[in-house]
Amino acid sequence: MEITKAAQNTRESSFKLAALDSETKNRALRAIAHSLRQNASLILKANQEDIARSKREKLAAPLLKRLKFDEIKIEAVCKGIETLITLTEPVGKTLSALELDKDLELFKVSCPIGVIGVIFESRPDALVQIATLCLKSGNAVLLKGGSEAQKTNRVLSNLIHKASTSCGVPEHWIKALETREDVKQMLALDGYIDLIIPRGSNNFVKYIMDNTTIPVLGHADGICHIYVDEHADLKMAVDIIIDSKCQYVAVCNALETLLVHRARAKELLPVLKQALDKKQVELRGCTETQKIIPVKPAVEKDWKTEYLELILSIKIVDSIDQAIRHINNYGSHHTDAIVTNSKEQAAKFLNLVDSADVFWNCSTRFSDGYRYGLGAEVGISTNKIHARGPVGIEGLLIYKWKLLGKGHLAAHYSGKQARSFTHKKITKECDV
Amino acid sequence: MEITKAAQNTRESSFKLAALDSETKNRALRAIAHSLRQNASLILKANQEDIARSKREKLAAPLLKRLKFDEIKIEAVCKGIETLITLTEPVGKTLSALELDKDLELFKVSCPIGVIGVIFESRPDALVQIATLCLKSGNAVLLKGGSEAQKTNRVLSNLIHKASTSCGVPEHWIKALETREDVKQMLALDGYIDLIIPRGSNNFVKYIMDNTTIPVLGHADGICHIYVDEHADLKMAVDIIIDSKCQYVAVCNALETLLVHRARAKELLPVLKQALDKKQVELRGCTETQKIIPVKPAVEKDWKTEYLELILSIKIVDSIDQAIRHINNYGSHHTDAIVTNSKEQAAKFLNLVDSADVFWNCSTRFSDGYRYGLGAEVGISTNKIHARGPVGIEGLLIYKWKLLGKGHLAAHYSGKQARSFTHKKITKECDV
Repeated sequence: MEITKAAQNTRESSFKLAALDSETKNRALRAIAHSLRQNASLILKANQEDIARSKREKLAAPLLKRLKFDEIKIEAVCKGIETLITLTEPVGKTLSALELDKDLELFKVSCPIGVIGVIFESRPDALVQIATLCLKSGNAVLLKGGSEAQKTNRVLSNLIHKASTSCGVPEHWIKALETREDVKQMLALDGYIDLIIPRGSNNFVKYIMDNTTIPVLGHADGICHIYVDEHADLKMAVDIIIDSKCQYVAVCNALETLLVHRARAKELLPVLKQALDKKQVELRGCTETQKIIPVKPAVEKDWKTEYLELILSIKIVDSIDQAIRHINNYGSHHTDAIVTNSKEQAAKFLNLVDSADVFWNCSTRFSDGYRYGLGAEVGISTNKIHARGPVGIEGLLIYKWKLLGKGHLAAHYSGKQARSFTHKKITKECDV
Repeated sequence: MEITKAAQNTRESSFKLAALDSETKNRALRAIAHSLRQNASLILKANQEDIARSKREKLAAPLLKRLKFDEIKIEAVCKGIETLITLTEPVGKTLSALELDKDLELFKVSCPIGVIGVIFESRPDALVQIATLCLKSGNAVLLKGGSEAQKTNRVLSNLIHKASTSCGVPEHWIKALETREDVKQMLALDGYIDLIIPRGSNNFVKYIMDNTTIPVLGHADGICHIYVDEHADLKMAVDIIIDSKCQYVAVCNALETLLVHRARAKELLPVLKQALDKKQVELRGCTETQKIIPVKPAVEKDWKTEYLELILSIKIVDSIDQAIRHINNYGSHHTDAIVTNSKEQAAKFLNLVDSADVFWNCSTRFSDGYRYGLGAEVGISTNKIHARGPVGIEGLLIYKWKLLGKGHLAAHYSGKQARSFTHKKITKECDV
């Protein structure tokens, strides 16, 4: 009940926030950064309490690490806010303009989605990042953090609310939910929340995707592949494989399965094994692979596993078609790469592999909002609608249609004496 | 089980269809139109059997009417297919291009969504329209029609499959599901279906939206409003209200609730009543309205009702803010219009009303894909993500990111000697 009431208030606030001018939003962002820096000691104190309690409650070490929010992280999120301020205003852009008839003009204009529900584990910096991205794009936000970060999150959301509303941002635009009730309550609020963004482990994201009818922006698994084609430069292949697997092993765009064309396997695999042995990468191979290099056998489950560890599964394929089929069936439609010198083979791979990011002769590790130059990253999506791959602020936007007439009636465009539509493109910006 | 197998085949087919060239798709569309015309008698026979059976089963008259698929309708859908052929190829368009570094180029390229699930009542012409739209946009399609149109749908989908595959479109790209099993089975196939498009009554659409985690494109209610502002031209207001309410009463963009500023109510309502009486429109009014003209009292339920009949509810408001609040709370976020001579008031309304289509001084009846010049209409969406308002073929498209390198590694862009990204816009088309 408390959550529903909070969601109602946030929704009510979202209507006003959608029409808020650029200056007010940027002023509020500046005030938020200022407030976070000013109140660093308050934040650190709350965070230390969260950490102490979580230690007593035996929270796993990686989660404890992500829970930590120190001065370096405060400075990092403030820098992020300052970058946001410099971005051009995303709301109110005329995306297309069409004259339907004399004095009847149709404009497609960018606008916020409305209310974003953010559900995240541990990391309090995620709260600040997503809240300020929402503000910049005119979206209200309901946040549900993990109970381990409760005190930190409460301080952060209060500071953000106070600093922003003091600059004229409507009350209740941001609300951190705190009740002990399950996240389930939030997932049922389809009347108030327009989009859910989950941040956390793949099981956590999968749970959310499976338990709500609200659209979810994100990805669960990142089972990324590299296919070494018959026409590959093998030196390049080894370098790309090592970078994709080892450069940062616990991330969604790291390599998990290698597919090798039969014609090049005998040449590639021994060299590759030598290089990967140096990096302590455990190899698991199909029957054919096992005939060439000493590896653990890969079982069916391996092809479906996101290791996020120094483990690589290897399969030898007869053709590019078999490689593509394997990726489409076992992959997570995240990021997949081909190494080949043949443009024709590359084109085939890029067009037939059904993934958000399809790469030719480069590391899978490039699929990332910062590397893509998106400015700010909302997340990485394996959805097939709205936004795919690394998603910048445009993932928090939609559009509305504004039609400006002078008393135009539909009846005039039907029947025997029907007027015709002109449907003429115009280059005007919408000014209402 | 049968449905799951069919969905697997369709998904498999979708990967190939996504990469199909423009000529093949257009040739297939031409073959489909030819086949429908050639086999008109077969279609009519199946349709007559459906109608006869449905009559025996006492199907409601409006549904019976929509079930009818005669030569005029065959010709109409064939004309629609011919228009589709003339549309430029929607797949493979370079939407943006960015140099990340020398010889490392990122392209955002349009592509099909994958597998579209279409669930519809009665109208067999919807099957042809949506199937051919899917083909043009490279999407595979699973169709589940109402049992009343089973024979017609079977003939149509067989003819479409046969004509298209004979031109080189991959097998199984279209499949009409027919089992007696509930539509529920299809709604659970989130591993195979990327987007559901429902066509039918609002209860039917609402049921689908509430019972699947697959994204749904469409709208349930269309509770459209007109707000007559303090600064309105009242003659224009009366004309727009009559057109919006009466021009076609049973459609989602027809007017259901009128909001009138208190300052103009005494002037407007008597004239309006006279005009609406001539059209046999039943009026239901708030307490204030009842003091000015004789009307039935409107109750809370009226503000939430899509009549789709000659009934109009009227409420007098104290301000534009109250009007906006009413629309955002009771409306269905479909189409809402303001009548005013004040540009300032118009801008306020257009920016604060959270609807797909917001109109100034024109009829609500204009919110429609044909009138918007979209070429072909997939449906009208009240979603807040992906596509909003009347949706053309672009609603069936998403994009993928293609990154073309020459052995680029992420490791080179981190650490002490890190290379910088250039992030330079380029104007090239992606040619792989």
